[in-house]
Amino acid sequence: MTKAESARAGLLARYVPVLDWGRTYSRDSLTNDLVAAVIVTIMLIPQSLAYALLAGLPAEMGLYASMLPLIAYAVFGTSRVLAVGPVAVVSLMTAAAVGKIVATGTPQYIEAAITLAFLSGAFLLMMGVFRLGFMANFLSHPVISGFITASGIIIAASQLKHILGITASGDNLLELLENLIANAASGNRITIAIGVGSVVFLFWVRKGLKPLLVRLGLPPRAAELLAKAGPVAAVAATTILAHQFDLGNLGVKLVGEVPQGLPSLSLPSFSPSLWSSLAGSAVLISIIGFVESVSVAQTLAAKKRQRIVPDQELIALGASNMAASVSGGYPVTGGFARSVVNFDAGADTPAAGAYTAIGLGIAALALTPLLAYLPQATLAATIIVAVLSLIDFSILKKSWDYSKADFTAVLVTILITLALGVETGVSAGVGISILIHLYRSSRPHIAVVGQVPGTEHFRNVKRHKVITHTDIVTVRVDESLYFANARYLEDYVYDMVAERSEVRHVILMCPAINAIDMSALESLEAINQRLKDAGLMLHLSEVKGPVMDRLQRSDFLKHLTGKVFLSQHEAMCALTGTDRHVEKTPK
Amino acid sequence: MTKAESARAGLLARYVPVLDWGRTYSRDSLTNDLVAAVIVTIMLIPQSLAYALLAGLPAEMGLYASMLPLIAYAVFGTSRVLAVGPVAVVSLMTAAAVGKIVATGTPQYIEAAITLAFLSGAFLLMMGVFRLGFMANFLSHPVISGFITASGIIIAASQLKHILGITASGDNLLELLENLIANAASGNRITIAIGVGSVVFLFWVRKGLKPLLVRLGLPPRAAELLAKAGPVAAVAATTILAHQFDLGNLGVKLVGEVPQGLPSLSLPSFSPSLWSSLAGSAVLISIIGFVESVSVAQTLAAKKRQRIVPDQELIALGASNMAASVSGGYPVTGGFARSVVNFDAGADTPAAGAYTAIGLGIAALALTPLLAYLPQATLAATIIVAVLSLIDFSILKKSWDYSKADFTAVLVTILITLALGVETGVSAGVGISILIHLYRSSRPHIAVVGQVPGTEHFRNVKRHKVITHTDIVTVRVDESLYFANARYLEDYVYDMVAERSEVRHVILMCPAINAIDMSALESLEAINQRLKDAGLMLHLSEVKGPVMDRLQRSDFLKHLTGKVFLSQHEAMCALTGTDRHVEKTPK
Repeated sequence: MTKAESARAGLLARYVPVLDWGRTYSRDSLTNDLVAAVIVTIMLIPQSLAYALLAGLPAEMGLYASMLPLIAYAVFGTSRVLAVGPVAVVSLMTAAAVGKIVATGTPQYIEAAITLAFLSGAFLLMMGVFRLGFMANFLSHPVISGFITASGIIIAASQLKHILGITASGDNLLELLENLIANAASGNRITIAIGVGSVVFLFWVRKGLKPLLVRLGLPPRAAELLAKAGPVAAVAATTILAHQFDLGNLGVKLVGEVPQGLPSLSLPSFSPSLWSSLAGSAVLISIIGFVESVSVAQTLAAKKRQRIVPDQELIALGASNMAASVSGGYPVTGGFARSVVNFDAGADTPAAGAYTAIGLGIAALALTPLLAYLPQATLAATIIVAVLSLIDFSILKKSWDYSKADFTAVLVTILITLALGVETGVSAGVGISILIHLYRSSRPHIAVVGQVPGTEHFRNVKRHKVITHTDIVTVRVDESLYFANARYLEDYVYDMVAERSEVRHVILMCPAINAIDMSALESLEAINQRLKDAGLMLHLSEVKGPVMDRLQRSDFLKHLTGKVFLSQHEAMCALTGTDRHVEKTPK
Repeated sequence: MTKAESARAGLLARYVPVLDWGRTYSRDSLTNDLVAAVIVTIMLIPQSLAYALLAGLPAEMGLYASMLPLIAYAVFGTSRVLAVGPVAVVSLMTAAAVGKIVATGTPQYIEAAITLAFLSGAFLLMMGVFRLGFMANFLSHPVISGFITASGIIIAASQLKHILGITASGDNLLELLENLIANAASGNRITIAIGVGSVVFLFWVRKGLKPLLVRLGLPPRAAELLAKAGPVAAVAATTILAHQFDLGNLGVKLVGEVPQGLPSLSLPSFSPSLWSSLAGSAVLISIIGFVESVSVAQTLAAKKRQRIVPDQELIALGASNMAASVSGGYPVTGGFARSVVNFDAGADTPAAGAYTAIGLGIAALALTPLLAYLPQATLAATIIVAVLSLIDFSILKKSWDYSKADFTAVLVTILITLALGVETGVSAGVGISILIHLYRSSRPHIAVVGQVPGTEHFRNVKRHKVITHTDIVTVRVDESLYFANARYLEDYVYDMVAERSEVRHVILMCPAINAIDMSALESLEAINQRLKDAGLMLHLSEVKGPVMDRLQRSDFLKHLTGKVFLSQHEAMCALTGTDRHVEKTPK
């Protein structure tokens, strides 16, 4: 290989990581990946069906969304173990996005969901190519936590209707509860028995089965993995029950006939009006999906000291959503539960994902006829038990203790999501956290400092016994200066000078100033000019290198009435004309 | 006075500053204020009429908006010399806001303008009472400069029609130019002569009259003030011309009959639909007006080492707009030109403003019949010459030199204001400057540091020859940690650790970290946990006091695998188990 060829191969491998790990794929890895794939397949069958129902789509679309996307991720993804497919929150967001423009159960609804996957894919690819992954950072952790918790509550509430065998719809908690209460009387007893029974069983599997299996002598890891088969057992048992006793005719809602076989090629709609009404939702779904996915991938990668490349993850998730869109699926992302199972089952490479896709393909070919008798209540139970792990109010307590500002962001996000739905909730969360950040940094900590006797240190006059001078005042700002706090600094300096009529020199001590933007530069110029008008001099001390570089590109230093001192101590020596107050401690 | 009474009086004086300066009002101040009032009154008569026309309102509303608001400001304002009334940019914004919902020249238009003043007043009062003045800081200086420049261009272009004696309307530059070109052929020659003549005369007065008067022996200050009477001279001359030669019948547009006398009591509309369509504009007008006004007030106050209280200014401007609303005016704010004239003329206290109001009242009683013959072209010339001083493209060059990010914000603001109008322009400016700030702080400067030989200093390994260790890596972050950069730090640390397989200790050096929000805390927890999973320890060094206080409110320090060191040097000594690499320089 020539140098140019090898550079080209390196670049290609960056965008198509499979070329990297695929070259050294070993027999050991094959075995590990196959074992993991079998386990994940068993877990995914009920979960995929259930999430499709949550999204308001036919059950088989959940299976479709779990095949081709996994293969696309295996080619482009940088995580060794991330499992891509339908997840709870994105399914809920899909239902909210599509439900507001077309009626559930219509062919247009399915087309819109496919189009949403296409748009999300396109947006993710675009973000990846232009390296815009940083946009996901505008979602603060507390906002995400609050959003996920509130989504979990809405999802659980939305599944209650299936457990009760009634109809009730709504995008937010208030609507859902209202409809549930209105229709609760019409519940079907057999449905309730199946639903409540499944919930109890699945809870027991989650909490009680593993300890039991361990006591029976199974190794803990095997017991853990076996417990993941709980949903499959519930699905099998209730399907057989429904078939044997013909529960469909007794008013129990079943999944109904599911087309057998692999998905056929589908295409998104290219209607401009549909695109424009879905675009905003596609952006929200992409960002939420990306944030969740990268966080799962990084958690798992860190355990083996592997590396995730967020910008490449955008491309991989983009490709996965494109793949979902052309194969009759709907928006997908990396899921927490399935990735953890994949990891625990020993998956070595993304090939495990490809094998899982094949496993699900076989399921789609062989098992779909059986699904006709699967009660919807069982799937609802699967969802409820799965999403309860998303609901976590501890963030409220934690943020309350740590910072009231973050607490406010969480609370607003939770309340608005519950009251007005997922899209408004997450948008409000982003808005409030940006506002809070601007507010906090708009009132930086500013201290008047003096010299600690016998040292070259300068500390806050309010907290320490320090030496000060009537004609010199030193102000330390503990924040970078930018538009949101520039005027605050001006006000502070003007007030201070107005109060201290003997002051002749103002020193701005800058060790904590990491940047000065144009607004702050103009404020400094204004401070300099106004102090000059009043007969005072402005000096700077301890300006950081990059900040100084930037100041030199402006006229500020030319007009500065005073000097820039390397250290505060030097400034005091120069301005007092001596170094008499520097009684160095003997060392 | 008892202590409680005096405290109450202090509080009252804070909200009603007139109680403070009014108590010691002297005969000297009276003389100074009266002189200033006469000069400002002469200057304000043509300016008020002109700005009302710019706002699409009858000329007399400009006079009305310059009376009661001045008195309200005199009672509540903290600036000694600020002159409140109609200003160019706010008049343009009023025209844009009201023009998009009602047709110019209708009674509804006037009512909407009065209502806009009421809503602006209410919003400013609300901001003042709840001390929300910091919201004005979201407007960065470059955005304001760009916005003012673009507004100046739109205003000048909008007045060309009066100079040419044609009709042309539009809220943005493209519409205006299109209409001007379409109708240019229908121009009235006499109107053009008056308009162009006035522009040339006013320019000469501005640039050439003062030097001439000084040469003729006048003291410079008197010459300066006399030059301010230029617009009055132009108004008087063209009015007489129009009257003598009956120019109205020759196609020259005149101001027409103006109701004689003081404004009668007016009330804003209380229609909810009008309120909701004006609310957004009222917010923008309030914030732009407040920012301009405070900046003028502070510039002038600094010259006499006086103090401006921004939150009280909100209350004063709120009261002024309320006053404008009940006396047939429209939105007002502190104007630059008039305040400077007031200052230069020697105004001592806000009483000068009250006397100006009386002067304008006399003008409204005595002079209005004469205004019927005033050509609109003269007023347009006054506006054009006045706003040309607002147009300043030097901000483009200045920001280009200083920071490309700020340059982008200015350029976007100017282009969007010109292309889409003032409201979209200023909103886009706010949005882009917040996005740029988040983007910049989302990629903070992070350096791996090592020890400068023979010292206790630690510097960037890329810039200095320093001592490092294969098993210890020290990372210094030069930015506060918050949601927008938390994940960037995570990525940085994971990548670094994945690249250096021998590393066992990671030290985060925190001297430049002024705050850590909840998102960043969770990122630190994640970093700690993931490093632990990989067998590494995380340490902190040089954490600031307030940051440490906050960390102690969380569980982070409990779970931290390593230690928190007071200094980086201490950390290195502890982790290397010796202090052998610390060869202290002899002092």
